[in-house]
Formats: sequence, C-alpha cells, structure tokens
Amino acid sequence: VPGIKDLPVASKKLLEESGCDIVMALGMPGSAAIDKQCAHEASTGLIRAQLMTNKHIIEVFVFEDEAPSDKELARLADARTREHAQNVYKLLNNRLSEEAGKGKREGFADVKPVDF
Amino acid sequence: VPGIKDLPVASKKLLEESGCDIVMALGMPGSAAIDKQCAHEASTGLIRAQLMTNKHIIEVFVFEDEAPSDKELARLADARTREHAQNVYKLLNNRLSEEAGKGKREGFADVKPVDF
Amino acid sequence: VPGIKDLPVASKKLLEESGCDIVMALGMPGSAAIDKQCAHEASTGLIRAQLMTNKHIIEVFVFEDEAPSDKELARLADARTREHAQNVYKLLNNRLSEEAGKGKREGFADVKPVDF
Amino acid sequence: VPGIKDLPVASKKLLEESGCDIVMALGMPGSAAIDKQCAHEASTGLIRAQLMTNKHIIEVFVFEDEAPSDKELARLADARTREHAQNVYKLLNNRLSEEAGKGKREGFADVKPVDF
Amino acid sequence: VPGIKDLPVASKKLLEESGCDIVMALGMPGSAAIDKQCAHEASTGLIRAQLMTNKHIIEVFVFEDEAPSDKELARLADARTREHAQNVYKLLNNRLSEEAGKGKREGFADVKPVDF
Repeated sequence: VPGIKDLPVASKKLLEESGCDIVMALGMPGSAAIDKQCAHEASTGLIRAQLMTNKHIIEVFVFEDEAPSDKELARLADARTREHAQNVYKLLNNRLSEEAGKGKREGFADVKPVDF
Repeated sequence: VPGIKDLPVASKKLLEESGCDIVMALGMPGSAAIDKQCAHEASTGLIRAQLMTNKHIIEVFVFEDEAPSDKELARLADARTREHAQNVYKLLNNRLSEEAGKGKREGFADVKPVDF
Repeated sequence: VPGIKDLPVASKKLLEESGCDIVMALGMPGSAAIDKQCAHEASTGLIRAQLMTNKHIIEVFVFEDEAPSDKELARLADARTREHAQNVYKLLNNRLSEEAGKGKREGFADVKPVDF
Repeated sequence: VPGIKDLPVASKKLLEESGCDIVMALGMPGSAAIDKQCAHEASTGLIRAQLMTNKHIIEVFVFEDEAPSDKELARLADARTREHAQNVYKLLNNRLSEEAGKGKREGFADVKPVDF
Repeated sequence: VPGIKDLPVASKKLLEESGCDIVMALGMPGSAAIDKQCAHEASTGLIRAQLMTNKHIIEVFVFEDEAPSDKELARLADARTREHAQNVYKLLNNRLSEEAGKGKREGFADVKPVDF
C-alpha cells in the first residue's frame, strides 16, 4: 500500500475477501510529528478493523527514531518482525497465554517481569 | 496477547465467541510517550468493543511510572486487580450503584468524597 | 460503574436494555493528565453511544480542578447537575431550541450572548 | 442542544427522523483547552454521523478566540454562517465542485489560490 | 466540498452511490494548530470510510507549511498528486506490492531503503 494509513482497509480486505485468518501489518513511520500522527491514525484504524472482523491484526511498526543508525534500525525491524511472526503462530494455536506478564519485548531485549 | 493494543479484539472475542459475560483487560503500559499513546488507542478500542457488545470490559491498566519501585508497582497491580475483580462481581450482581460518588480508588487509598 | 470510562456502555445499556429515553452520565475526573485523557476517551465513547442509539446522553462532568475548594466543587457539581437536569426535561419536551445562542452555562454564571 | 458535544446525535436525528437532507451544525466553542477538546470530540462525532447516514453535516464552528472583540466575533459568525449556507445550497445542487482549489474561506477573506 | 472535514462522507458517497472503485481525496490544510487538528479529524474519518466500504481512499494532503514558497508548494502538490495517481492505478491492478519497503515518497525525493 502507499502508506501506513492505507494498512487498515488493506488488512481488512485480506481478512474478509482473501480468506486470511490473521494479518501482520508492517510499517516504518518517520520521525516527524506528522508521521507519529499518521501512525496514531493507522493504529486506531487497525484496532477498528479487528473489532469489525473479530480477527487479530498484528501491528509491527518500527519508528525511524527507535534506533541510532540504519544498521541498528534494520536489525530491529528484522527482529521485531520475526518475534511477532512467532506471536502470530502462537495466537493461531492458542499458545500465547502462558507468556503473559513475562515482560516479553519484540525487537529489543525482554524486560524483567515485575516480581509479585 | 502480544501487547495492549491487541486487548480490544481479544476481549471482544471472549465476549462473543467464548460466552463470557464480562472481561477484565489487564495491561502494564511503559512510561514512554509512545506507550501512553498505545494505552490511549487500547482504551479507545476497549470502549468501542463494549459498545459493540453491550457488555462491560473492565480495563485494569497499571502504568510503569505510577509507582517509584518495582516492589510498590507489584503491590499496586495486585491491589488494583483485586479491587476491580470485586467491581466485576458487583457489576454482575447490580450492586455497584451504592458505591457511586464515594471516591473509591482501585490500588491506591480511597479519596474523601466531596461533601454536599 | 467503577470509573468514567465505564459510562458509555452503561449508558447504552440503560437506553437499549432498560427502556430509558435519555441518560445523564455524571462523572468527576481528577486533575492529572491521565484523568483528562480518560475523560476524553469517555466523552468520545458517550458520543458514539448516542450515535448508535439515536438518543441523547447528557454528559455532566465536573473536573476536580474546576474549583479552588472542595466546598465550591460541591456547589458546582450540584448546580451543574441540576441545570443539566432541566436541559434533559426540555430536550424531552422539545423546548430547548429557544435558548440556543444565549450563552447559557451549567454550574457557572451564564456568559453574555454575543450581540448581533 | 445544551452544548456542542450534543450536536452529533441531534444532527443525526434530524437526518434520520425528521427527513432532513443536510444539516448545518452551529457552535461557538470557548477559548480554554477543555473547550478545544470538546470541539474536537464534537467534530469527530459529526464526521461519524455523516458516515453513518451518507449525508452531509456542515460544521460551522466559530471559536471565541478567533476574533479580538465581541463585535468582530459577531461579524465573523454571521458571515461564516451565511457563506456556509451558500455551500449547503450548492452541495444540494451539485454546484460546489467548480469552486474547489480556489482558496475560498468562510467568514474571513478568501486566500489567493496557489498558482500552478 | 467546503473543507477537508467534508471529504470522508463525500468520498464514501462516491464509493457507494456513484459506483467508484477508489477515490483520491485531495486537500490542502493550513499551517495553524486548528488546521492540523482538522486534518487529523479528516484522516480518521477517511480511514473509517474505507473500513465501512472495504475500498481504498487515497488521501493526498499537502500542508501549507510543507514548502517554503507558493511556487514550491504548487510543485509539491502537483507531484504528490501525480505519484498518488500512479499508486491508484497500481492498487487497482494489484501491482503495488513489489514497491513495498523501497522508501518511496510522493512529492519529495524517495528515501534510501534501509539495507538488510
């Protein structure tokens, strides 16, 4: 699609017209204020699309300012996408609940879970 | 679910596909601006999911910056969840109206109700 | 309800399941940034609930920082609620249109209408 | 209606229950931050109401801080409303497309169109 | 239409009542804070309209402060519209996926894709 704001309807069409059970929506928003605004609008639309279809859309956004260099940005995008792809697999097989509350992070190192 | 933005559709599926009457949606958003943005998108989606189903989803979010230490954060999350669980019980039994306007807070000490 | 974000679905249920023609949604949001965010999410949900039902929900929110003392806050909440209750009565009887543009304020003194 | 946040459902009821083809929604939001927030919520609701009905609602908001004096504010509100009323007439008669891109402004002087 | 906030319902009517398969929504928001707020409301509405119709609406907004002069602004608006028109053509013919992740920008020079 041309930009991230086109992801919601594109994802919904994949779910409703192309027989997909789940969609990964990948986007790399820029670092300007307007880009963050667009990402917010896209995220809101992706949630709405999920509620209209009762299916998951896994948003995988990597902001250009999340990493200090192009090389690190590429590593982050690659890692985050791979780890979310594992989430997709687990969601489809109902195996994600055992990881809730473990502080798992996609693309960066996991954080330590809060100790109860 | 992978993150808090996946809570709205997951909650709606529990209400519509798994026969639940009410859902508690627990999440612990980080302290960065993007995390607060995600929490806003998730909250908006949770409200929309409730309006689409005519059922309550009790949002139990604990922000990482609501407490000064991990220990206090764990206490807060535990207390807030337990007190909201009591709200859920009362909501299902229509017994919450008598507590309206009493300044009840979940996780922190109650505030004094405004005196009329 | 536990908090103001639970008002939209609670109001919609009153309109659709309990036979109400109109609902007053009372809330007293705190003064922190997160409280104002919650109020925004609640307001947006209340408007959506109205559009889904074609019935009015009169939002009566009194922010904790709208008055300098608890005593004045109580007076404000009391006055605003009473004046909105009159609005509800007039709305149900189609008698509100004659007051449009008069600078009416609920809880505070009316402002002078702009002179044409 | 009591306030601008009541405009969306009131407009939708005019379109769906009173047989209107188009609605002008007039409001004069105050100049405080909370007033601008309310205007945002109202605008979002008006757009949603239009999408639910496939009919236009012409929002005519005049912010109290758009003019330096009450006299100028009255002139602005009067002019903007009259010019939007002409837009309504043209919309109903499919005659607005010829004015697209001309820099037309309602209430203030038109801006010069960008020269291609 | 009178302003950019009228674009969502106008686009939806083109898709549903005039038999269009895709719509380009062109707008030139001003540079004031209220203009950016309007653009946000319009964008959110355009995404909602797409989700309600399962068809694409390509938003082509050019902000008045995106270019330092009227001449450059005209060039930008012209270029962005032409390049989005090509996107429309490719979307209708399912030929856009091969350009994903290439850093394509409409109106400005493309950015270098991140190297994996």
